[in-house]
Amino acid sequence: RKRKLLQADEYVKGILDGNITLLSQAVTLIESSNPEHQQLAQDIIIKCLPFAGNSTRLGITGVPGAGKSTFIEALGKQITGNGGKLAVLAIDPSSERSKGSILGDKTRMESLSSDPNAYIRPSPSAGSLGGVARKTRETIVLCEAAGFDTIFIETVGVGQSETAVHSMVDFFLLIQIAGAGDELQGIKRGIIEMSDAIAINKADGTNVEKANMAASQFRNALHLYPPTESGWIPKVLTCSSLNGTGIIEIWDTVSDYVEQTRKNEFFSHRRREQAKYWMYESVNETLRNDFYSNPEIKERLNGMEKAVLNDEISSFVAARRLLDVYFKTFESNGKKPE
Amino acid sequence: RKRKLLQADEYVKGILDGNITLLSQAVTLIESSNPEHQQLAQDIIIKCLPFAGNSTRLGITGVPGAGKSTFIEALGKQITGNGGKLAVLAIDPSSERSKGSILGDKTRMESLSSDPNAYIRPSPSAGSLGGVARKTRETIVLCEAAGFDTIFIETVGVGQSETAVHSMVDFFLLIQIAGAGDELQGIKRGIIEMSDAIAINKADGTNVEKANMAASQFRNALHLYPPTESGWIPKVLTCSSLNGTGIIEIWDTVSDYVEQTRKNEFFSHRRREQAKYWMYESVNETLRNDFYSNPEIKERLNGMEKAVLNDEISSFVAARRLLDVYFKTFESNGKKPE
Repeated sequence: RKRKLLQADEYVKGILDGNITLLSQAVTLIESSNPEHQQLAQDIIIKCLPFAGNSTRLGITGVPGAGKSTFIEALGKQITGNGGKLAVLAIDPSSERSKGSILGDKTRMESLSSDPNAYIRPSPSAGSLGGVARKTRETIVLCEAAGFDTIFIETVGVGQSETAVHSMVDFFLLIQIAGAGDELQGIKRGIIEMSDAIAINKADGTNVEKANMAASQFRNALHLYPPTESGWIPKVLTCSSLNGTGIIEIWDTVSDYVEQTRKNEFFSHRRREQAKYWMYESVNETLRNDFYSNPEIKERLNGMEKAVLNDEISSFVAARRLLDVYFKTFESNGKKPE
Repeated sequence: RKRKLLQADEYVKGILDGNITLLSQAVTLIESSNPEHQQLAQDIIIKCLPFAGNSTRLGITGVPGAGKSTFIEALGKQITGNGGKLAVLAIDPSSERSKGSILGDKTRMESLSSDPNAYIRPSPSAGSLGGVARKTRETIVLCEAAGFDTIFIETVGVGQSETAVHSMVDFFLLIQIAGAGDELQGIKRGIIEMSDAIAINKADGTNVEKANMAASQFRNALHLYPPTESGWIPKVLTCSSLNGTGIIEIWDTVSDYVEQTRKNEFFSHRRREQAKYWMYESVNETLRNDFYSNPEIKERLNGMEKAVLNDEISSFVAARRLLDVYFKTFESNGKKPE
């Protein structure tokens, strides 16, 4: 049964009124691959853009088992309890899904999902990282236009998505648990250096001492890092999502960050850089996709890769030959290669 | 006065014989933008490829003032003193040159430059990072074919070049100095996490204690990092290039790494991944260059970027519109867009 589409203006009016049903339908249009839906979605986004931007965007990452869901519940309830409106989005490309655990977002965040001031939208279910990132970024615009003043973007922290999340949030939070051994196995190198804060979760019961020790180790480690562009010194905190301790302190830290970076204007600088980044990134991604999906290239790519691996040809000459083939297909077709 | 070019085979024979004059002339061909030189260079490279690969490739980075030159001299003399043959190359795109200090490579490495078993080649002096990286990577091939069993690739450690260097070496060494404060200012975030070892240099005189403390801090910090893909645990060492202490231990560390990763086959795995990486990276770079140097794009890019920054249009729609313009230029021209 197909639902009849409304006009762009009807969606926009609904979204600006905070109508969650229409917001959800508009997000579904963003996620659709149907060209008509895509066009409608873009019309809606353009009309929502002037009303967007007024939120704090918080990226949250951590390996499965770090307790992200309960943490999001605990922090989320604090935010809505103080009158805030929270949207929880996720980036989790299908290729990474099996490694993670983003299953049934609404079940795993039971109390938030029944909270009228919270909106939980699971990750778009299919597509490349670039596609999923685009959809999530555009969903942020609609959520902000709908009046959500806090946006969480969650990712599972084991794949390539962290950079994408980092490029669309104001503050990047890494959830860790005590015991710097096996628990770190899944985390990608580089994540620690892009974090604005690290929360050592599950600091409860017999775990408190271990968590404090881990926190102090991380604090010492962060000391050795070069200063951030924002002037912000990354913080390390402990918390327990279970009994609610330390959660408000994490939110205070985010607020401090926002205040400090708004004062030194890094906040808007970063947002502008991100907007530019996504324009360039999506140009570059499309150029790559067009090249690698070209039938002539597909036919030759494996062989060329093998020649490189067998030292029959340098990497650069191999690239040059493929590019010659690619640009020649335009000559013979003389048409838009899509 | 133009030097007459030899045949590819003559250069190759000279290189395989270890003739430094012919090696240098061939490297000059690699660096030339003259198409005839380029063609000749590629012929030489292809013929040298079967004789390349038998070296340890060591990336060395650190901010100006960390003592890279004296370190390279100290380590280099140890290597040639033990009968090794060492080539010292650099990656230092012109855009980053002003930030760094790569001036007169031969002057600043006086004793190595008069060493018959060392070959010092300054960074190609002009060009984009991609271009400079290509030239350096191809120069490695010729140096290896000429019998150099150790290759140093030096970079200044303040720009974008570290990733390029990391992608062409077996082992990545970060030179630091004690005092984790101001000295770190110039280092880019992310470098620490890609290092296979950190050497705290200038551990001499009254500095020894500070250096040891810095080393132990770094050791604790590295503990908190996720394990490396190679299974190697990054090491932190102290050294003094001035009085020669700790230098041999650093070389032993590199040798341990090579031994360990050859055993678990990560060594050849990484080399193969690097060869593939450079093929794909140079395809992608050319695609980008072709797009951004397209006159129609150049004309519109600024305006589109402004529209994005003023929230008149989403980043993704802006990208789409530029791509439509770009691909249309092929339709109307129907020819190779270079």
